[in-house]
Amino acid sequence: MAKVGLCSWRCRGNASRPPQKLLVTAGMDRDQMVGMINGKKINGIYINEAPLYTAATSNPDKLVKECGADSLPHACLVGRFVDNRFVYRQTFIIRSYEIGPDKTATMETLMNLLQETALNHVTSSGLAGNGFGATREMSLRKLIWVVTRIHVQVQRYSSWGDVVEIDTWVDAAGKNGMRRDWIIRDYNTQEIITRATSTWVIMNRDTRRLSKIPDQVRQEVIPFYLNKLAIPTEENDTDKIDKLTDATAGRIRSGLAPRWNDMDANQHVNNVKYIGWILESVPINVLGAHSLTSMTLEYRRECRQSNLLESLTSTTASSGDSDTDPPHKTGRCPDLEYTHLLRMQADKAEIVRARTEWHSKTK
Amino acid sequence: MAKVGLCSWRCRGNASRPPQKLLVTAGMDRDQMVGMINGKKINGIYINEAPLYTAATSNPDKLVKECGADSLPHACLVGRFVDNRFVYRQTFIIRSYEIGPDKTATMETLMNLLQETALNHVTSSGLAGNGFGATREMSLRKLIWVVTRIHVQVQRYSSWGDVVEIDTWVDAAGKNGMRRDWIIRDYNTQEIITRATSTWVIMNRDTRRLSKIPDQVRQEVIPFYLNKLAIPTEENDTDKIDKLTDATAGRIRSGLAPRWNDMDANQHVNNVKYIGWILESVPINVLGAHSLTSMTLEYRRECRQSNLLESLTSTTASSGDSDTDPPHKTGRCPDLEYTHLLRMQADKAEIVRARTEWHSKTK
Repeated sequence: MAKVGLCSWRCRGNASRPPQKLLVTAGMDRDQMVGMINGKKINGIYINEAPLYTAATSNPDKLVKECGADSLPHACLVGRFVDNRFVYRQTFIIRSYEIGPDKTATMETLMNLLQETALNHVTSSGLAGNGFGATREMSLRKLIWVVTRIHVQVQRYSSWGDVVEIDTWVDAAGKNGMRRDWIIRDYNTQEIITRATSTWVIMNRDTRRLSKIPDQVRQEVIPFYLNKLAIPTEENDTDKIDKLTDATAGRIRSGLAPRWNDMDANQHVNNVKYIGWILESVPINVLGAHSLTSMTLEYRRECRQSNLLESLTSTTASSGDSDTDPPHKTGRCPDLEYTHLLRMQADKAEIVRARTEWHSKTK
Repeated sequence: MAKVGLCSWRCRGNASRPPQKLLVTAGMDRDQMVGMINGKKINGIYINEAPLYTAATSNPDKLVKECGADSLPHACLVGRFVDNRFVYRQTFIIRSYEIGPDKTATMETLMNLLQETALNHVTSSGLAGNGFGATREMSLRKLIWVVTRIHVQVQRYSSWGDVVEIDTWVDAAGKNGMRRDWIIRDYNTQEIITRATSTWVIMNRDTRRLSKIPDQVRQEVIPFYLNKLAIPTEENDTDKIDKLTDATAGRIRSGLAPRWNDMDANQHVNNVKYIGWILESVPINVLGAHSLTSMTLEYRRECRQSNLLESLTSTTASSGDSDTDPPHKTGRCPDLEYTHLLRMQADKAEIVRARTEWHSKTK
């Protein structure tokens, strides 16, 4: 498979994107998979559930003490499995520094919380190797997950102090991909306020080449696959994102420089940071007067701290084949729709293509 | 009092900084202040405790239901009062996106958590007006708190999944200032891993002039004053921070541009974001090989999104009067010590002066 830039959970290779079409997990009965939920065999495999949170687990006396009248348990700081362990659920409170100028959570905040829930899902499953989200069999083979596409639909943004409940699960995506979905609910009303879906492939950490899923890895993850869609097929954004160029971009913002603090534990710019740069070429009056209701990111290449970036934005042209593929088949009817490109300033190499939809706040 | 730039919880006026010397709260007995802790009168005043977190409070049935075997209460997502309501305590779990390249929480993360705890303290006290951290009597008078100085000492940075417990309280600082202190503990070991202290003054939101504390506001906050120091006087950094210039700065990084997402709910660049820009002029090998163990920020002026910034850094010269004021009287003995200035690129106006101390990671 093709060699691509260095990255993890953030870029895509130039191998074709795995189809979004869902596969029913083959060769295994769902009841077989669930197995003994309260025994050692869970989701069809024997696991040693790794205690991610030593504070809560290594000092049970303290935890019990904290359940007293004037103090509270801390178990809800971590997530838990629900729905026969096919879904991982975690609640978060929106913090003061996670809201933007309009006093609601930003898209970056949502993406951060999705990432956190996904990583905790892997760790809590007992499958975690020594990397961010990699399974043990993957770590043995120096393999990592890389995200190729994320699509997020926001119905409503939360405010400071709101509690949100995030569900996440995984499923197959083609022969060598994995799909991860999320649903964010308002904890109080249980209203679904955000839906998201993403596609992941496996890459060799050293060679940076995409890899097939080894059988041993497939056997690890298949018991967790759940054939359920956060975003119904007809509402999903699977359309190609056009490549912007100097000629087609309405606005170009150059000289964007990743900061030291934009880098994550893998010494790379964290994929969520790209959102801020993409928004840098959106007109400021749009940022103020509109809500970002849908975002699709197609990751193509990573960037490191030394790279200078350019952000390109253009209002999206109507679809070329509008007879067969009307632009707003999803029924979301945004007031504005943009196409974006984040690229290296030096060689114009593509990092992320994106599409955003916006609704006026005054409506 | 003097007119200063627009800001909130982030800049200082040119009035002299209130002395750090502590005042014992006058005219009120401690027992009087505490009053009826389980009644309406708490900390000496009648309050209506505001339910910040409607999710946990407006749906008690749900909360009880969540206490079952397979689900957990969410009460620990919020903080609580301890020590006779003089101290507000909140626990946090360090999230995957809050750690830096060295896999530990960043200074920005710590500062965000300190801010969050402080704001929740005010809200939970029942004093909150309609602004970020302002009391009701302040809001009636269009007054806001602005931070003039923060000093943070980090003994150890936490890792992803670690639970930290943050205590905060307030006390008088001179006639017209308030001191807010914090202690961060490792929840599991109860080891103190960070100490911080800050000084606040009151400003008119419209005129941007510093104001005396009105008597009505003083009466609101005095019952919460606690004569306790997070950082002992002899270990505090109260030294003047020298002003850097083009001539004295060893390194200057220009063209730093605040992004849309750097702005907070007050439409201003959030004070925590300054840390990232300050670190932009620190040599990258220092950022990688050293830990930031102490940071002192002296806020002078706010900035908005349209301002381009410059970050200046210089290794700190030894103290001018080293006989009376040796550079490391605190006993912290850092391996490196820097002086910083963040200023407007256009008119060189000062935004923040800072001092940082660093310890080699290999020691």
